[in-house]
This record gives sequence, C-alpha cells and structure tokens, in this order.
Amino acid sequence: MSEFVDKLRAIVGDKGLITDEQTKHPYVTDWRENYLGTALAVVRPASTEEVAAVVKLCAAEKVAIVPQGGNTGLVGGGMPHETGREIVLSLTRMNRIVEVDTIGYSMTVESGVVLKTIQETAAAHDRLFPLSLAAEGSCTIGGNLSTNAGGVQVLHYGNARHLVLGLEVVTPAGDIWNGLRALKKDNTGYDLRDLYLGAEGTLGIITKAVLKLWPKPKDIATSWIAVPSPDAAVALLSGAHAASEDNVTSCELMARQGLDFVLKHIPGSVDPLTEIHDWYVLLEWSSTRARREGGNEGGLREKMEAYLGEAMEKGLVLDAAIAQNEAQARALWALRENHAEAQKKEGPSIKHDISVAVSKLPAFMKEGLAAMKKSLPDCRPVPFGHVGDGNLHFNCQSPPGWDKPSFMKYGEAISGAVYDLVVGYGGSISAEHGIGQLKLEDLAHYRSKVELDVMRSVKRALDPHNIMNPGKVIQV
Amino acid sequence: MSEFVDKLRAIVGDKGLITDEQTKHPYVTDWRENYLGTALAVVRPASTEEVAAVVKLCAAEKVAIVPQGGNTGLVGGGMPHETGREIVLSLTRMNRIVEVDTIGYSMTVESGVVLKTIQETAAAHDRLFPLSLAAEGSCTIGGNLSTNAGGVQVLHYGNARHLVLGLEVVTPAGDIWNGLRALKKDNTGYDLRDLYLGAEGTLGIITKAVLKLWPKPKDIATSWIAVPSPDAAVALLSGAHAASEDNVTSCELMARQGLDFVLKHIPGSVDPLTEIHDWYVLLEWSSTRARREGGNEGGLREKMEAYLGEAMEKGLVLDAAIAQNEAQARALWALRENHAEAQKKEGPSIKHDISVAVSKLPAFMKEGLAAMKKSLPDCRPVPFGHVGDGNLHFNCQSPPGWDKPSFMKYGEAISGAVYDLVVGYGGSISAEHGIGQLKLEDLAHYRSKVELDVMRSVKRALDPHNIMNPGKVIQV
Repeated sequence: MSEFVDKLRAIVGDKGLITDEQTKHPYVTDWRENYLGTALAVVRPASTEEVAAVVKLCAAEKVAIVPQGGNTGLVGGGMPHETGREIVLSLTRMNRIVEVDTIGYSMTVESGVVLKTIQETAAAHDRLFPLSLAAEGSCTIGGNLSTNAGGVQVLHYGNARHLVLGLEVVTPAGDIWNGLRALKKDNTGYDLRDLYLGAEGTLGIITKAVLKLWPKPKDIATSWIAVPSPDAAVALLSGAHAASEDNVTSCELMARQGLDFVLKHIPGSVDPLTEIHDWYVLLEWSSTRARREGGNEGGLREKMEAYLGEAMEKGLVLDAAIAQNEAQARALWALRENHAEAQKKEGPSIKHDISVAVSKLPAFMKEGLAAMKKSLPDCRPVPFGHVGDGNLHFNCQSPPGWDKPSFMKYGEAISGAVYDLVVGYGGSISAEHGIGQLKLEDLAHYRSKVELDVMRSVKRALDPHNIMNPGKVIQV
Repeated sequence: MSEFVDKLRAIVGDKGLITDEQTKHPYVTDWRENYLGTALAVVRPASTEEVAAVVKLCAAEKVAIVPQGGNTGLVGGGMPHETGREIVLSLTRMNRIVEVDTIGYSMTVESGVVLKTIQETAAAHDRLFPLSLAAEGSCTIGGNLSTNAGGVQVLHYGNARHLVLGLEVVTPAGDIWNGLRALKKDNTGYDLRDLYLGAEGTLGIITKAVLKLWPKPKDIATSWIAVPSPDAAVALLSGAHAASEDNVTSCELMARQGLDFVLKHIPGSVDPLTEIHDWYVLLEWSSTRARREGGNEGGLREKMEAYLGEAMEKGLVLDAAIAQNEAQARALWALRENHAEAQKKEGPSIKHDISVAVSKLPAFMKEGLAAMKKSLPDCRPVPFGHVGDGNLHFNCQSPPGWDKPSFMKYGEAISGAVYDLVVGYGGSISAEHGIGQLKLEDLAHYRSKVELDVMRSVKRALDPHNIMNPGKVIQV
C-alpha cells in the first residue's frame, strides 16, 4: 500500500496528503463522536484536475473514496468505515470563490468554500445566498449540496437543490462533467444535476457549483413568541403569509426543554420573556422593500407587531418579544441555533430528523411525544424545527445523568416507535440530514422494493465498481 | 401480432384500444405535421394498474411503448417511429382530479388531466397552479411533467419540475413506484422524482402527481409596452423587480414580425397601440395582496403606470397600454399566445427554443438575427419569448410564399448557425421544448462525451430492454 500512497503523493503533493494517525483523526471521526473510522490516507486535492487524477488512480486500484466537506454531518455520510481500506478525500483546500455575477444573480464557487463565506460574499455584493443552518461557520457548500441541506429559510427559498443552477462533478471513472451552466431553463436530457445533488457523494464528487443569488433583504422583522401549543404555531404561520404579504422567511418551533438546555449550557443566553412557557416560535419576515422610516406605512416590524397583537386576542400567542435591532435578532437566533450544542453538552441524545405534511404536524407531535415516553418514561423529548416545512428535529435526551451505553439500549425502541409513526403519517425518516450510514437499514426497511431497486440500478450504472462512498445511502 | 393485440384488449377492454388506421391517425401525427408514424395499436388505459399490466406485457414481448399526453409537443417526443412495431400509450383517459388539499396547498391528479382543468380546479379553491402555456387547453399534466414544461410564469414560480411534490411512475418493468409524497422536505436517497421529470417518457410513465398550489393572486396588472430594443426590455425587467416589490410574474418579448402575423391570421386581433414599433414587451405583475380601492396607496396597476412613466422618461419605453380589466388583459395575452398558431397559418417555419444567461440575451439576439439573415437573406425572423428566463423562441419564417420543401433546404444551415452561436454563448439548444426526435442528433453533437455517457448509463440501467420511448432524448 505504500506504493499506492506514493502515487497519491505524486498527484497532490505533500501539502495534499495526510498519513499520520494523529493528523488524520479529525477526518475519521465526527462531531458527535458517533463514528470512528480509519483511512488509508486523507487526500486534500487543490483542484478539480487533482480530484479527477485521484479518482482515476483509485478506480484503477479499486480503492474506495469517502468524499468529505466540513465534516459536520449527522448521519456518518462523510465517515470512512473501520476497514482501513478507504481514503478520505477532503475538499477543504478547494475553497475559492470563482466568480460573482451580480447582474445574473449567480456565484460560481469551488465545493470546499465554507457556507458562511458564501453568505458574506453575497452580502458584500448586495445579494443574498439564503442557505442558512446552525453549522454554517464550518460546513462547506459541497457537503451542503451533496446532502441537499435544508436549514431555516427553506420555507421561502427552498432546499439546497433549489439554490443551484449548475454543477461540476468528477465521476467514479475520474472524468470531469462540466455542467456549470448558469441557465434558468435548460431541457436537454436527463436532470443529472438533481441526481448528484443529495446523493451524498455516492455517485460522484461535486467540485464546483453555480449558485443562485437573490436580492438582499432590506427590511427584516424577528420575534420570539410563546404559543400555547404546536397547533397554535401552525395556525400562527398560516395567517402570517397574508399578514406579511408573503414575506415569511423562517418559522421555527421549540419546546421549553430545548430552551432550558440552551440557557443552562450556552454562556450569555437569556430567556427573552419573563414567564415560563411550554412552546416557542421564532418568526422572521424579510422583504427586499426598504423600511420607510417615518412614513405612514411603517415597516415589517410594525406589521408583525400588529399581527401578533391580533393573534394574542385569538389566543394563538401568549407573549412575544420583537427584536428592535440586529443584535437583538441575532440573540434570538442564537437560542435556536444553539439547540444542538446544548443537547450535546447535556449528555447523550437520539436525533430524529423527520417530516410530515404541515397540516398533520400537531397530531403527529402529540402521538410522537407519547410514543417516546412509552418507550422510556424518564426520557426528555426535545422537539424543535421548521414548522413551515413540516420538518422536526424530534430529538430525545436521556434521563438526567445517564451515560451513553445505558441510554442507547433504548435507542432502537425509541427510534422504531418514532419512525413507524412517521411512516404511518406518510412522512419522511430523514427530512434534511440524509441517510449516510446511520439510516441505511432504516431506508431499506421503510422504502418499497421498487424504489430501492431503482436506486440500486442507478448506483450500479454510475459507479459499477462501487468505489464512491460505498455503504452509504444504499447497499449494492 | 393479432395475438398480442388480443392480450392488450384483455387488459384495457375495447374502450381502451384503437386499431383502425383512421382512428389511430391523430395519435401518430403531431400538431405541426412534422411527423407521421405508425403504431401497432393505440392503447388508452383507464388506471395505473392497467398501465402497469400493458407495460408488463410489452416488456415480456419486447414491444416498444411511446407514452403520449395531449400530443402538443414540438419535438416529436410523443410520436411513434415509422416501423409500426411500437404502441402508443395515451394517458388521456386517466383524467381524474384525485384530491385537492387547500390547507396543505397541494393537488393530486392523474397524468391525463388537461392543464387548463387543473388551473380551473385550483382557482375554484382560491388557489393558483401557475403553469401556463399556449397549449394549456389541450396539453396534459403528464406531458407537462415529462417534458419539464416552461411557459410564461417560470420567472416567478419556476419550471414544471418546481411545481411538483410527488409522483407515481410505472417503470419499464411494469412495476408501480409510489412516490406520491406530499412532503416539502425529504432527503431519503436519490432524487428519482427529478430524474423522471423531464425524461420525456424514456425512463418510465408518469401516472399520477402531487402538485404544489399557491395562493391565488388578488391583484394583477398587465400591460403591452413598445420598447426600442431587446436591451431596453432587459433593463425594463431589471428595474421592474424592485418597482413591483418582487411581484413580476411574466415578461414576454415580441418582435413586430410576430405581431403582424397574429393581426393577419387570428380573427379579432387588434394592435393595442396606434403606432408601429419594432419590439414589444408584455409585462404582468401579480400579488396575493388585495387591491385597496380608494386607499391612498393604490394597487399594482397604479404602481405599474408610475414605473412605466419613469421608464418612458429614460427612453426604455416608447408607448404602453395598461389593461383596465380582465377582458383587456386576456386580449393582450392572446396576442402573445397566438404567435405559434399565426406562424403555422403563415406557412413553413423553423423553431429554435434556446436560452442564454439573461445578461447576454441582447448581444446574442443581435448576432443571431444577423446569422439567420446570412443563411437566407429573405427569411423572416420571429423572435419572441421569456426575457426573465433568457429563453427565446428564436423562430425563422420562410420567405413569403415558399413551400415547405424549398424552405427546409435551408433548415440545416439556419439551425446550425443559431445553435453554434447558442453554444458559444454557453446556452441551451432546448430551453423548454425538450429533445424528442427533433434534437436527438443536436444533443449528441453539442453535449460532452462524459455527459452523454452518464445519460446512456442511466437509460440502460432503468430500461435495459430499451422499450420505453426508444430513440428519444438519447440513443443507446
């Protein structure tokens, strides 16, 4: 194998190759420390041509490749197995912004650019790239696209797949597909772009992308709202579309349990409201229309205030705090974004990233919370997520003080109960996190034979030697 | 073969089978009379189960199937070849609206429902299904989805693929894939939905779909605008986004030549403006916010009037007529929608359905018109289309009085010049009409070997016996 490593070095140079165990460590384990794999080597190419050469070499030598971005995934999709016979191909050195086209509202980037850098580059050009999620400071756009990431603005702008015009992909044969087209309309053959998007690196490696940009919002209103129930949250969102003149960009639901964890573990966190409530909504409206200070019409903040006042009279809202400036808005968002970090600090937990039709969300929630409690009466459910997408992080924290092995004994029962319920509601067992390794068996269990067969046919056709992230998404 | 026909009859009954030549005729020729194929039989199943049984039979007997909707396609995608060894499978008897979910903003339909019926059903529920195109009175949703149809509202709502939540598809093996999920988010495996959408029936037959609905617009402003040039049209649209508060839903460019044909051939057509101009834009804004009659703010019509006034001062607008009611708006739209019909009545023409990046559209247009004239000085270019999508129907009418065979001698030179230019501009040779038979060789010529190989691999994997609409999109 040292001969193979020498060939890798010849392609990417010393700067692009990691072989010692200590330096490899962060690339073979995940953020939640649920996976610990081993890798022949970690390869960090600096260009598409280098990626292609590495893949060609691996194809010739039948060495499997695990593509990796910022390594913030939650399902082990970017983790190598324990066999030690795979390489990790990290895209993090490919981190150039290639072009910003403000007239055409597009940006071309390499796949290793960190999401936050893309957001900031767009903002510097008076544009918006709307993908936004808790890991944005470290996740890369290649990972976002390979997992079809969701986040907090899907409601208005769509999933990651809706934010892309074109892609460049290195195929499992080491060929470069140049699909970097900046076209709004193009009906020439099969939709390869959407096939690679969300395929978790099992069909090829995304090396570049043409992203769509939007006008930068000029007026934003953000509020933290106590609501009596999930039903009230759905009703509140339903009315908000008209009240905001179709400007709802985020609507996040949280339970008190999650907020308590954040207040306990994240320094500087403050409850925006004086009393304790069971459920909260973080609501954001934004518009490209500038605020007209002093005008008789006011901006979104005034409209939101009026809407929340009406909603309070109807009993949909118990209390609310509207951010008066950007700093306050950021503090409200931090309460939401720090849920995952706070859960990690509190101890072991099981995550369920599920979706159902929005109208069925409250009923599902009632049954789902009962099902968790039935599996383990002392568990602490931490449901939160994106109301408008019907997408909940229907998480379950261990009883206080339990260690991971003790809690994980209940894992199968809890997840089984939740997933059976989700499937009964016609929902999805992975709304935005993907399948990776974690849900491989769940997908095989819950999807029809026809669907699995079609997926398997596609995988076999495009990756006949099964070298591209094998054992993720679908087993061939 | 009569034995095979008997087996078909056993599945679909006499009502579902057409074998005599005269009744078959409308199914084996297209609207523009560019194709005349022959078919073993025309089969019209009444249910998904019947479709599956027909496909299973054809798979067993290795008989190829040409799926067909309303037969309004422009590239021969739904036409059988001249071999007489294929069957046409028409979905037109599968025309039921299965469910309208107003709370969940979705509608489930069989694939043979006519587009206009879907629009009207949505409207009756105070909802909008935004797909809109000239053939909407006869095209079916299955055809729209199989070709990823575009139309006049792509600018705001996206192509057909963006209007779909879930699909039911009969695979080339005759299995039924139930992907009728009404979920906003679902990251479980490969995106099969987008693979079937736009595949022109070469990978399977779409039998049902869950469509997305939108709130019905409450305020619409429509105007017919004379502009000095395509450059002015692009600039006019660019400013309109902000002026309308992001409510531009259509922006169609037309040349005088096209309008002249409509005025000549379509009874009741009237030029909305008194003077003759070279270029016209049909601009529509719509909002879910109701008009506030008598208020001090006015509605979209007043805003559009103000915007056009400013644009006139800047020289972007020469003259304009704003519709004062729905009947006037419909009359303006008829001038645009009747372009294809009028071109047909005028005589032979060649259609190019191309797209380039919006910012490059004016420059492309100048060069493209010159290229056409160079190939045949007396030809009459009829460019029109969707400015905001960079998508033009860059058509070419024969010199006055020419017959089809004489004109078609110049076809290859004219189309070659146009397509070479499009590819030079990084554009698409089929922005919304698809590939079908017409552009099979063009696609093979202009796309990279890598891309064609991937498409071919997908086709072979999903349709190993090549019985599903063979010889369309990609040759295997």
